[in-house]
Amino acid sequence: MSAEKEAHGEAHGDFTSSPLDPADWQAFRDEAHRLLDACIDHLSAAREHPWRPLGDADRAALALGKASEGIGTGALVDELARNVLPFATGNTHPRFFGWVHGTGLASGLLSEITAATMNSNCGGRDHGAVYVEREVVDWCRRCFGFPESASGQLVAGTSQATVIAFAAARTRALGKDSRYDGIQGHPKLVTYAVKGVHNATSKALELLGIGSSALRTIDTDADGRMDMALLAQAVAADRAAGLRPLCVVGTAGSVDLGLYDDLEALADFCTKEAIWLHVDGAFGAWARLASAPWSGLVRGIERADSLAFDFHKWMYVQYDCGAVLIRDEAIHREAFAARPAYLAKQDQGLGGGEPWYCDYGVDLSRGFRALKVWSALRAYGSDALGKAITRNCELAALLGRLVEKSPELRLSRPVRLNVCCFSAAPAEWDGAAQDALNTRITHELQLAGEVVFSTTKIDGRTVIRAAITNHRTCEADMDYAVAAVARIRDTAIATRS
Amino acid sequence: MSAEKEAHGEAHGDFTSSPLDPADWQAFRDEAHRLLDACIDHLSAAREHPWRPLGDADRAALALGKASEGIGTGALVDELARNVLPFATGNTHPRFFGWVHGTGLASGLLSEITAATMNSNCGGRDHGAVYVEREVVDWCRRCFGFPESASGQLVAGTSQATVIAFAAARTRALGKDSRYDGIQGHPKLVTYAVKGVHNATSKALELLGIGSSALRTIDTDADGRMDMALLAQAVAADRAAGLRPLCVVGTAGSVDLGLYDDLEALADFCTKEAIWLHVDGAFGAWARLASAPWSGLVRGIERADSLAFDFHKWMYVQYDCGAVLIRDEAIHREAFAARPAYLAKQDQGLGGGEPWYCDYGVDLSRGFRALKVWSALRAYGSDALGKAITRNCELAALLGRLVEKSPELRLSRPVRLNVCCFSAAPAEWDGAAQDALNTRITHELQLAGEVVFSTTKIDGRTVIRAAITNHRTCEADMDYAVAAVARIRDTAIATRS
Repeated sequence: MSAEKEAHGEAHGDFTSSPLDPADWQAFRDEAHRLLDACIDHLSAAREHPWRPLGDADRAALALGKASEGIGTGALVDELARNVLPFATGNTHPRFFGWVHGTGLASGLLSEITAATMNSNCGGRDHGAVYVEREVVDWCRRCFGFPESASGQLVAGTSQATVIAFAAARTRALGKDSRYDGIQGHPKLVTYAVKGVHNATSKALELLGIGSSALRTIDTDADGRMDMALLAQAVAADRAAGLRPLCVVGTAGSVDLGLYDDLEALADFCTKEAIWLHVDGAFGAWARLASAPWSGLVRGIERADSLAFDFHKWMYVQYDCGAVLIRDEAIHREAFAARPAYLAKQDQGLGGGEPWYCDYGVDLSRGFRALKVWSALRAYGSDALGKAITRNCELAALLGRLVEKSPELRLSRPVRLNVCCFSAAPAEWDGAAQDALNTRITHELQLAGEVVFSTTKIDGRTVIRAAITNHRTCEADMDYAVAAVARIRDTAIATRS
Repeated sequence: MSAEKEAHGEAHGDFTSSPLDPADWQAFRDEAHRLLDACIDHLSAAREHPWRPLGDADRAALALGKASEGIGTGALVDELARNVLPFATGNTHPRFFGWVHGTGLASGLLSEITAATMNSNCGGRDHGAVYVEREVVDWCRRCFGFPESASGQLVAGTSQATVIAFAAARTRALGKDSRYDGIQGHPKLVTYAVKGVHNATSKALELLGIGSSALRTIDTDADGRMDMALLAQAVAADRAAGLRPLCVVGTAGSVDLGLYDDLEALADFCTKEAIWLHVDGAFGAWARLASAPWSGLVRGIERADSLAFDFHKWMYVQYDCGAVLIRDEAIHREAFAARPAYLAKQDQGLGGGEPWYCDYGVDLSRGFRALKVWSALRAYGSDALGKAITRNCELAALLGRLVEKSPELRLSRPVRLNVCCFSAAPAEWDGAAQDALNTRITHELQLAGEVVFSTTKIDGRTVIRAAITNHRTCEADMDYAVAAVARIRDTAIATRS
């Protein structure tokens, strides 16, 4: 009998237990520990668990059907361990270099156990999870050199962060009445970004009703950065035509090659022109924590009006987890705040705790994402995370050197960050055959569970792409990967009709 | 030495371990089990853990500071158990009736352990998590009577689901070129919903650039439903003025009173007028799983063009988790699909597995939310979940009867679903004093950890509101809650100057 129960007289009430809670908590405890062991077995042997494709029987084992009757939590544990756990994407494996997938952290297992128990809704109110999120946002603010008055929140990822940032920029450009009136009576908005900008930018413009035709893609200069003279020309031409700039999007880490715009030059330009500067730093923003020369790539990021970035890529935090920072809290709030009567601000109690995160974004109900980040920073510290990021850049550079040393492989572009693109196809083959060989190599290595590369197009040709955001990758993995590519290539060439 | 390592010759490579992985996996395993025990202790004693406000020292204990140095996962476990876990919102407690917060499920602890280990990105590709999400979406489709050709995805909650549904409706209304062109050159769009519709509707219209002025709120009929004659008049007037209907929003469970529109009548009207019918079923859609009479409230929901609903409210699933269903998959895809080169469709390997969820929404990176729902359906079955929903309605009705029996309390409206609003203030007091007393009662009960009610405004007056979406609540909790309200009320009246 607890003190609380006694105090509230619950000893005398007929308080029945929940029909959905375990009838036997000790049995549930045993089941949960059994699952945790299976999961830690899996995680501690990450090198033995590459991506594992599903056969028909594996898929059938996931069928829900009508699901009218339950099987109980004990049988659920068996199914999770046997039918679900083995069929992950494989980004926990040391030779997963596909797309830009983070690895996950052991601390994320701890944070998720805690968060699932608490079941907090971080839309607002006065409780611990909100204070944890404030700590994380504040840490980000300091990390990226944003002023104390800046605001931000955790979101699913950079796509959502971009939508929120653009909505704030739109409120600045058109005034707060545009929330009520809509954009249809306003001047047409335009946005500028480097050629090769991530398509989250186009998708955000589409969602906001502005349309992707509003995106002006500016050619690169000799260093792969947005050409500042071309940007100035484009802005001047649009202004002369009566269009209104929404923002300039600076890229910090392009998805195909890991290139950075000159953020200092963009900030100078945007200050002079009074245009909102947004930075897409999905993975590349975290060069901030790396050693030189990589840390220098984000110089100027602290001058952005808004910054979008992920924790589930280069901070290795579990999916999904990104964030947005907005320099001007007042505009951020003006773009989103709205509270119906049942959520009215209270001066005390659980309904207190201003500001509420629902006033900074789309979601009213929000999970406790912040705990994943808080736990990672607390357990490992930003120095160790930064070292792992530096190591990823060094490994990409190593891969580049191995490709250059290999007579069969051709580097597509110099390695600048953590992305290495190359071709394994003989240069004398026709283009389609080169494309087919590079594609085939990635497929065979994925299916064999050896290495996961993805592909992309550079100068119109399909090439092999490695993006290293994997804290488990080591030097020997690079040797292994290059040898594996050469092996498949040689077999393919030998058997070519 | 594993077979995979041997096969790939890893026995001979110098594969070093990750600097971020535990140096001692056994020690990590012990730490994780220790945390799991602390969490299960907490969860199994949910009745002893109401909302617990944070003092200054509690907040200070969450400070990240620079976080340059890590404390290790062992110390992290201590901090999570001591400094984070106790400070939850309290919606796991049986007498949490505030706002519309779900309770969480023991199965959610199991699913989150598994999901954190797998670290899947459900934006696309060919892996287990995507097949689990397909099972969940397909189960929802069948549950709500949508056709086999319908599409859907899991999202953070109804706010996101509404944005996605409206974007699809906009593509239908303006054509797919509107993604490229934007909405500025198009006729002004208008939307119709019952007075008291959730403000997720306004916020979605604002985000999409349409503006909240496009929302026509239609008065209710005698049964609290959207008045169909007034709706027809409003649509006719807008059309005559050259405006174009975006959609009609049917409400399934209004937030203040749990009222339902006549979805059959709305579907008839929208069919005749060729207008998109969206249903906001955030919590109320799940009356579908309840017994009569509540199950009858959602009749016609199967005829909607889109449906937005949550799992973290009335399906008790952990935060955050909602979903959208779209009847016309082609329009859904047309509103969102876009794939850059590095995500090009592959006919085999990890890059296969069409369709990809990123083509149905905003997010490119997406966590494994589906596993929470899959696990709940698998462990408990929809019959048991439906019974818990029915029980919540019965408990709200019981609360309504207890209020009516109490001479000091006044029911604000008949209880229709799971929401009960009432006043504890003497009717002869002036309005401001009534408001103050009802607010004070909710604050004192929250701070005492006895009962969490929220407040709302009905007919301009602040009233006490209980929304029962809590599977731990039982009859005795209702007796307790009413007695506690009466106690605070009497003390307040006795001490009134």
